[in-house]
Amino acid sequence: MSASRIVYLNGEFLPFAEAKVPVMDRGFLFADGIYEVSAVLDGHLVDNAAHLARLDRSLGEIGIRNPHDAAEWERLQLDLVRRNGLTEGLVYMQVTRGVFERDFGFPPADTSPTVMMFTQAKTVAANPLAEKGARIITVEDLRWKRRDIKSVALLAQVLAKQQAVEAGVSEAWMVEDGAVTEGSSSTAFVITADRTLVTRPLSTALLPGITRASVLRLAAEADLRIEERLITVAEAQAAAEAFYTSASSFVMPVIEIDGNRIGDGRPGPLTRRLRELYLELARAG
Amino acid sequence: MSASRIVYLNGEFLPFAEAKVPVMDRGFLFADGIYEVSAVLDGHLVDNAAHLARLDRSLGEIGIRNPHDAAEWERLQLDLVRRNGLTEGLVYMQVTRGVFERDFGFPPADTSPTVMMFTQAKTVAANPLAEKGARIITVEDLRWKRRDIKSVALLAQVLAKQQAVEAGVSEAWMVEDGAVTEGSSSTAFVITADRTLVTRPLSTALLPGITRASVLRLAAEADLRIEERLITVAEAQAAAEAFYTSASSFVMPVIEIDGNRIGDGRPGPLTRRLRELYLELARAG
Repeated sequence: MSASRIVYLNGEFLPFAEAKVPVMDRGFLFADGIYEVSAVLDGHLVDNAAHLARLDRSLGEIGIRNPHDAAEWERLQLDLVRRNGLTEGLVYMQVTRGVFERDFGFPPADTSPTVMMFTQAKTVAANPLAEKGARIITVEDLRWKRRDIKSVALLAQVLAKQQAVEAGVSEAWMVEDGAVTEGSSSTAFVITADRTLVTRPLSTALLPGITRASVLRLAAEADLRIEERLITVAEAQAAAEAFYTSASSFVMPVIEIDGNRIGDGRPGPLTRRLRELYLELARAG
Repeated sequence: MSASRIVYLNGEFLPFAEAKVPVMDRGFLFADGIYEVSAVLDGHLVDNAAHLARLDRSLGEIGIRNPHDAAEWERLQLDLVRRNGLTEGLVYMQVTRGVFERDFGFPPADTSPTVMMFTQAKTVAANPLAEKGARIITVEDLRWKRRDIKSVALLAQVLAKQQAVEAGVSEAWMVEDGAVTEGSSSTAFVITADRTLVTRPLSTALLPGITRASVLRLAAEADLRIEERLITVAEAQAAAEAFYTSASSFVMPVIEIDGNRIGDGRPGPLTRRLRELYLELARAG
């Protein structure tokens, strides 16, 4: 596929090798941009309206004009999916404040945002890691204070994920003031012995996860109560079950945190049930 | 100059319009990169050894290999200055972790860093703002916890500077826990009525300013004592004198903070003396 891989850039569908941005793009110089990722399953987009709504909200929070309405975005996404022959994986979207002579303040209001999209082929449904379960570590949360904005200023998340890679595990949950905020690219959940699904309440401290919201809606079907509150590291390490969610990992069982086995060291039954329910929802489209 | 403006990119000196990076550059996707700015005065680089040492240190902190030693960097900088016919302004340098399929963890160790440099013509010595003095505001410091690393994850600084622009002033000093950390692109100083030069001590909370260090070395010549401690917003607003420093603004007098006039509303005499001393140093090269 890579030989014919197509990238969307500012109105054009370009061969991968030709998709380049000027060095004065504010995404490159200042991380002055927003991104989103929607999963693709059986050729259709998963939870896409919610991802596009969050994209619009993030852009608004930093004062970048959303260059497309939701219908236009979806048309472009599906066009790109089709051109890349993608049936399963993800569509990545990025919007920056555009190209202008470097200066911290915003460029003139008529500066066109840069719009870029690419696809990645990936096994999202029958993901082998979901069968086995993920081992994770906790790391210090170094991020800025507006984590509700899905910006491309991702250096802290990069460093957190790299700590996980170097520890030989799949994800890092970030910790601030003794409580888990979220994963480097996911939302953190635990399930207590009395069937309570626990995740951190939304605030500026974490991203309003789209898959998080869907899983919370499915909790009742799995006969789970919901508590939105802080999760300490000690509670996470001793949880009956644990998992994380994201657009591309769906519901990912966690079997070890900082070397502490979760449950019996296999994906927990309630987590597996939530993953099944989410997959049904994602397949239904 | 702009028609023939030359940008350095990965070993090549390119016409401005041809200087582009692939969309998979980690600088564009993740803010996974470092930058530096050195001033150019009378055609020579100011405080450049210290800027290159800080570049090397920042790169090391996030695990990017420095592609050049200091002598190579300086040779490239001077070549670019010459090709652009620059006598006064700045040289901007940026190094990112390079181009690789998007994934939060680091790419393979043999991935080449992206190296980019451009120049900007600018009046740095006879800057009219330095004659008049700058008005500034204070804003909330939204940044991450490793501000000692000069990374391109600058969205918080962009938003701070834009608040200043919208307030009709020149700079924003960022405030955390009631104390000034630093400016959006500068270091903050006040001078008390008893000739004490006060600036925040170095830590992970702020960038180790190169111009800051030079000014502290010059303080004795201006008959100033030095105190490195926190500055509250109230103290700043009521200071006898105030100024900020950066590679391109040198020593910039502040005449108003949040609408409060500093001193008699003109650049303070000790601040002017420090600016003169710094200019002498910069001219001496």
